[in-house]
Amino acid sequence: SAPSTPIRATLFPGDGIGPEIAESVKQIFKAAEVPIEWEEHYVGTEIDPRTQSFLTWESLESVRKNRVGLKGPMATPIGKGHRSLNLTLRKELNLYANVRPCYSLPGYKTRYDNVNLITIRENTEGEYSGLEHQVVRGVVESLKVITRQASLRVAEYAFHYAKAHGRERVSAIHKANIMQKTDGLFLKCCREVAEKYPEIKYEEVVIDNCCMMLVKNPGLFDVLVMPNLYGDIISDLCAGLVGGLGLTPSCNIGEGGIALAEAVHGSAPDIAGKNLANPTALLLSGVSMLRHLDLHDKADQIQDAILNTIAEGKYRTADLGGKAKTTEFTNAIIDHL
Amino acid sequence: SAPSTPIRATLFPGDGIGPEIAESVKQIFKAAEVPIEWEEHYVGTEIDPRTQSFLTWESLESVRKNRVGLKGPMATPIGKGHRSLNLTLRKELNLYANVRPCYSLPGYKTRYDNVNLITIRENTEGEYSGLEHQVVRGVVESLKVITRQASLRVAEYAFHYAKAHGRERVSAIHKANIMQKTDGLFLKCCREVAEKYPEIKYEEVVIDNCCMMLVKNPGLFDVLVMPNLYGDIISDLCAGLVGGLGLTPSCNIGEGGIALAEAVHGSAPDIAGKNLANPTALLLSGVSMLRHLDLHDKADQIQDAILNTIAEGKYRTADLGGKAKTTEFTNAIIDHL
Ligand SMILES: CC(C)[C@H](C(=O)O)[C@@H](O)C(=O)O
Ligand SMILES: CC(C)[C@H](C(=O)O)[C@@H](O)C(=O)O
Repeated sequence: SAPSTPIRATLFPGDGIGPEIAESVKQIFKAAEVPIEWEEHYVGTEIDPRTQSFLTWESLESVRKNRVGLKGPMATPIGKGHRSLNLTLRKELNLYANVRPCYSLPGYKTRYDNVNLITIRENTEGEYSGLEHQVVRGVVESLKVITRQASLRVAEYAFHYAKAHGRERVSAIHKANIMQKTDGLFLKCCREVAEKYPEIKYEEVVIDNCCMMLVKNPGLFDVLVMPNLYGDIISDLCAGLVGGLGLTPSCNIGEGGIALAEAVHGSAPDIAGKNLANPTALLLSGVSMLRHLDLHDKADQIQDAILNTIAEGKYRTADLGGKAKTTEFTNAIIDHL
Repeated sequence: SAPSTPIRATLFPGDGIGPEIAESVKQIFKAAEVPIEWEEHYVGTEIDPRTQSFLTWESLESVRKNRVGLKGPMATPIGKGHRSLNLTLRKELNLYANVRPCYSLPGYKTRYDNVNLITIRENTEGEYSGLEHQVVRGVVESLKVITRQASLRVAEYAFHYAKAHGRERVSAIHKANIMQKTDGLFLKCCREVAEKYPEIKYEEVVIDNCCMMLVKNPGLFDVLVMPNLYGDIISDLCAGLVGGLGLTPSCNIGEGGIALAEAVHGSAPDIAGKNLANPTALLLSGVSMLRHLDLHDKADQIQDAILNTIAEGKYRTADLGGKAKTTEFTNAIIDHL
């Protein structure tokens, strides 16, 4: 049941279609009487020296204080001397696990039925170390960094998640046949954690084989946990199975229980401001945030309304083959609440 | 038209089901009167110090001399102090490009129709450098190495291939938004080569997005060229779209025009020696080898016979849902020649 004093949560509407889809979330959450008070922050217009990016220090402080937030798409301005907005958030807030549920939406047909996967991606290190250098002209290197600490942390999160959500199995995805030390350490950490969860099945799958199996039969998998780059690749692949990034939620988990949910699709500047955007990914990310806050009744209510609206098929946005405007789709969801 | 003196080609039957499927290739090639004389080499029973692996130096010399070969599956014996058989072949023979055509087999239904993709993978460097070390306890690093030389070489091969095979477009797959220097160099090399082929369209696609697009609509792609690990992942994903590694050919191109075609599936020890294996991947790899030798008539004849046998559906091996033995399937192909 909902607490009586509202919970403050940070909202980053983001760029492009961000403000429109954030508006949809605000309206639907309000209609569902979700006890949340949004604290809105926008991407700044100049580089904040404290974050080395266009994200303001105040906006990061807001997430640190509220411990929960929801983020729309943010296009990193082009140019040198500043950090990507997404990477800044991950680093500054220590968002160590990215959780992406991918499930088939009832009534929205793709080539795959009954997909129900969770990808959990290590979000702070690996190939994203930012360490690259030229050895001699024409020879460049980049460093992949795997640590015991970050590997254990994400493995713990994956098993904890599997147990809390009644999932049966965790698959660790790797390429330890080639990167024996780095991916080998990642696997070693997963095995250590697996031993503490004897009720959850544990397996290890090489990434190339995993991708082949995913496109042949995604039902073979349940929860997948993996280093950063593999997670980047596989989470998008899985999203593709059920319709793409416009339909799949994402939530980043940080140290100390921070949760920053986000729509991982782009900011679609071509349709921005035209009332054409599909708010589903941001809405479902908002639902993830509610679950993180243990507001499961509200989460179920909103999720059902979204899925029923899509299943009914009367109001679908253009990306799903329909003609509904963002506001029409939003109102239809409110009617389904 | 076929030359009158036979061409010598190296044959590595490999382990597990390797000898059975190699026998199928030999019989079908003989029935089709392919002017090839096989020089067979097996994996050795002890480590050859000159190759640091169970592959004998003589077998490598055979490929170097013949310049063409066909390879079945090889399971690297477990244990330390020696190199993987596949990696030894790639390094010692400088097999710099791995070419994998993935096309829908008529009559063999998967979730995807009319797939027709070529993945071209850089095969010698990148994440496969073998350079890994522990920095301090619990912190390990691996080095990804990208060179101008290897990137130009594989890009050249990709555009050359696209042109020679009447393909329209080459897509370079990368993650240069994160690995700006390494993947950035790879892209720079692709762009340089692209300029020499104005008749071929060129585009760059980020790997995560590429995987999502591939599972949503593989028809968006034509020829894909990429660094080693991305090629490992995407070539298996693409194989999965049309049925898996048991159905897709592969050919490795080395310096000086060496071509080593190979079945990239496993050695399936569980069904070895039982006359149950599907020889299709090795057969189609053999066909790739014939095309490399410009024996297009023989290649067409054999490829048609294989595809017609599968399409007809009367003789299919167990992996394709049928009951045919390897020898029955082989004889059916011979009847179709
Ligand atoms: C935009 C890009 C830097 C980012 C990543 O690679 O992590 C994106 O693909 C994602 O998955 O959030
Ligand atoms: C077996 C393994 C080392 C190999 C690779 O990673 O290259 C395989 O996956 C392949 O694609 O040939």
